[in-house]
Amino acid sequence: MSTFDGLWAEIAGVGRDPGSGGYRRPVWGAAERTLREWFLGCAAGRGMDTETDRNGNLWAWWLPPGRTGDPSDALVTGSHLDSVPDGGAFDGPLGVVSAFAAVDALRAEGHVPRRPIGIVAFADEEGARFGVACAGSQLSTGALAPERALGLRDAEGHSLAEVLTAAGRDPSAVGRDPRLTERVGLFVELHVEQGRALDRLGEPVAVASSIWPHGRWRLDFTGEANHAGATLLADRHDPMLPYAATVVAARERAGQHGGVATFGKLGVTPNGANAIASAISAVLDARAPSTEVLEAMTAEVFADAARHAATEGTTVAVRTESVSPVVTFPDGPRDRIRRVLGAVPVLPTAAGHDAGVLSAVLPTAMLFVRNPTGVSHSPAEWAEHDDCLAGVAALTAVLRDGTSA
Amino acid sequence: MSTFDGLWAEIAGVGRDPGSGGYRRPVWGAAERTLREWFLGCAAGRGMDTETDRNGNLWAWWLPPGRTGDPSDALVTGSHLDSVPDGGAFDGPLGVVSAFAAVDALRAEGHVPRRPIGIVAFADEEGARFGVACAGSQLSTGALAPERALGLRDAEGHSLAEVLTAAGRDPSAVGRDPRLTERVGLFVELHVEQGRALDRLGEPVAVASSIWPHGRWRLDFTGEANHAGATLLADRHDPMLPYAATVVAARERAGQHGGVATFGKLGVTPNGANAIASAISAVLDARAPSTEVLEAMTAEVFADAARHAATEGTTVAVRTESVSPVVTFPDGPRDRIRRVLGAVPVLPTAAGHDAGVLSAVLPTAMLFVRNPTGVSHSPAEWAEHDDCLAGVAALTAVLRDGTSA
Repeated sequence: MSTFDGLWAEIAGVGRDPGSGGYRRPVWGAAERTLREWFLGCAAGRGMDTETDRNGNLWAWWLPPGRTGDPSDALVTGSHLDSVPDGGAFDGPLGVVSAFAAVDALRAEGHVPRRPIGIVAFADEEGARFGVACAGSQLSTGALAPERALGLRDAEGHSLAEVLTAAGRDPSAVGRDPRLTERVGLFVELHVEQGRALDRLGEPVAVASSIWPHGRWRLDFTGEANHAGATLLADRHDPMLPYAATVVAARERAGQHGGVATFGKLGVTPNGANAIASAISAVLDARAPSTEVLEAMTAEVFADAARHAATEGTTVAVRTESVSPVVTFPDGPRDRIRRVLGAVPVLPTAAGHDAGVLSAVLPTAMLFVRNPTGVSHSPAEWAEHDDCLAGVAALTAVLRDGTSA
Repeated sequence: MSTFDGLWAEIAGVGRDPGSGGYRRPVWGAAERTLREWFLGCAAGRGMDTETDRNGNLWAWWLPPGRTGDPSDALVTGSHLDSVPDGGAFDGPLGVVSAFAAVDALRAEGHVPRRPIGIVAFADEEGARFGVACAGSQLSTGALAPERALGLRDAEGHSLAEVLTAAGRDPSAVGRDPRLTERVGLFVELHVEQGRALDRLGEPVAVASSIWPHGRWRLDFTGEANHAGATLLADRHDPMLPYAATVVAARERAGQHGGVATFGKLGVTPNGANAIASAISAVLDARAPSTEVLEAMTAEVFADAARHAATEGTTVAVRTESVSPVVTFPDGPRDRIRRVLGAVPVLPTAAGHDAGVLSAVLPTAMLFVRNPTGVSHSPAEWAEHDDCLAGVAALTAVLRDGTSA
C-alpha cells in the first residue's frame, strides 16, 4: 500500500485556483512557501535531515546507519514544487511526492541504504515569475550568475533580491554550490511526460535519452502610439502588425525545421481599445532536435521579424534570455535503470528539466510517467492513478538498486 | 491676453506619468477627480453656477443678467477631462480649457449674453476604464442603458456601480437626463484634430462635417493550454496563431475598404513564456466612411477569424461591444460658424466624440485645432501654442455670435 495517495492529497489544494482548476505556485509566493513547509515536514516526519541551500533548493537526506555529517556520493531523486500560471498538478510535484512515497516503500520493506539517499525540490524550475527557467539548479551549478539572477524582476517589478529578502533569505549567499558534486553521485528525476509518446506506445514509464536544445528570446517591437480611429493606415507605425506576422512566420519556420516555436507571453503598451499600440514585448520559446537546427530556425524568425517591422515603419530588438544546449543523458545510469526496470522505452523530450541542468556537472537520468493526453502546463494535465503508482514502483526499484550492496 | 496659458498650466501636471510623459486620467481615478475639482473651482471663480449631473457630467452656467433658475436653450461648449492610458495632454482638456478661456475673453470685453452659455465636461469619453466610449453623454441621451453601464467592470474587476458608490455618487440615479434637450440649444465641441488634414491644408482651425461610423468588438479565441516545448505542432490548439492571422487580415481588409481596423488591446491567458496560451481576448476597433462599408469590412474580418481559428483547432467568439452610426453634423450651425470665422476648412473625422453622441438628440457642431503630427492618444500628441490661441479666438467668436442679440 503506497503512501502516494496520502501525500498527494496533502498538497492537492495548495495554490489551486478554484475558477480554472489550475495551480498558481510561483516561487516564493504563499502557495509555494506552503509547499516548502510541507516538504520539510515530510522529511522531518521520516527522520531525514533537511536543508534549504543558498539558492533556496530543498534537500532531505536518509543516511546509511552510523553515517553522520555531510552526505557524499548520494543517490538523489526529486523534482520541483513551483508551477506555471494555471499549471497542472503533476509537473514537478509528481517527482517530489513519488520520491517520498519511494522512501516510504523502502523503509517499509526494511531496506538499509549503503549510500545516502537524497530528496530534492529545486527552486523556480518553471521560471514563471522571473523569466529564467531552472533558476535554482542553474545557480547551484554556476550556469546562472548570481548578479544576473538577483536583478531579475517579476511582473510587479520586484527583483529576486527583494523577494528573497522579504522571504527571510540572504541574497548575498546566492551562487554556485561547491558541495553539489561532492554530495550528489547520481540525480534521477521522475517527471510526468509532456507529450503523448508513452500513450502511443501503451507503456506507463520511460527513461530519458536527451533533452532538445531550448532558447528563450525577448522581441521588443516598438512603434508609435496613436488614435485608432483618426490615424490613416498610411500614417501608422503599429507594432502589433509585425508582431502578428512574426507569430505566423515562427510557426511556419518551426514546421519546416521539425522544431517548435511558441509565443505565449506578451505585453502590450498602452493596451487601450482605441489606441494603436506603441510597443509589443513578446517572448519566443523555441526548441529543436539539435543546436544547429535551433540556431538556423530562430535566425530565420528574427529575420522575418526585422523585415515585417521595417515594412510597418517600426523596429524590433531581439534579446537572448536563455539558451540551453542539447542534453544527452549518460548511457551508464540509463542502461542500469533499464536492467532494473526491464526494457522500458527510451524517449527524448523537448521540455527542460533540472536534471538537464545538473547533467553539465554530474551524472543524471530521468523517468517519465505516461500522460494520456500529452497536455501539460494546463489545468487539464493528467496522469492515471495506476501510472503514478507504476512511477513510484519504478523509482523505488531504482533507489533500492542504487543503494544496495 | 488670453487666460489660456494659466489655465493650461494648472492641469499640466495632473495624472502625468513622469516616465512616459503621458497622462493617466481614467474616470473616477484620483487624477480625474482632481480635474473635476479644478473644473468646479474655475466655474465658481467666474461666478458660474455648477452642477455634477446624475451621470457625473460637469456643468457650469453663465446666465443672462436677471435670469435665474434652470437654464434653457443654452449655447454649450466643452469636451472631456479623462484620458486613455498614456494619452496626450490635448485630447479632451483642450476643449475645456479653451471654453473657460473663451468665457474669460467675453467677460473681459464686456459681453452680455442674451442666452445662457454653458461649459460641460462629459464623464468617461474615452471609455478607457470600463470599455464603453462616451459613457457620460450616452447615458444622458439614453443611448446607453443604465443597467448595462453599471455592470461594466474595470481591469481590477470593480463595476461602475461600485466605483460610483466609492466616489460618493448614487448609482441608482444614473440614466437618461430629460433636461438635456431643454437646457442645451446647441453644443459646440472644440477638440484637437486627431489626424494631419489641417497640417496638410496649412490652416489652424476647421469645422466638422461628419464622424465615421465606429464599432468595437471583442474576439475571444479559445484553444488549449499546453507545454511550449513538449507539445508537437500537430497536437497544438494555440489561439495565438488565429489571433495573429486575424490581425494581419484585418489590416488588409481595412486597406481594401478604405477604413481603419486596429487591435490595440489584448489579454493572454495564462501569459507564461513556456505555456501555449489557452485563450486570447482581443478588441477590434474598426471605422469606415459609411455604415455599409463598416459592416462589409468587419464581416470579412470575422470570417477570416473563424477560418483561422478552425485551422488551428480552436474557436473564436465575436461579441459586439458598441457600434456608433455615422454622424452628419447639421448644416445650419456649421454654416453659421463659417460665416463667423470665414471659410475655414470642413473636415470629416474617424474619431468618436460626445458631440457625435449628442447629435442624436440636439444640434451640435465641432471645431478642430491643428495637430502638426496627427499623433493622438500618445504622449507625443501636440498642438502649437499659436494654434491653441486661434482655437480660443474661434470659440470666443462662436460664443459671442451665438449669444448676441
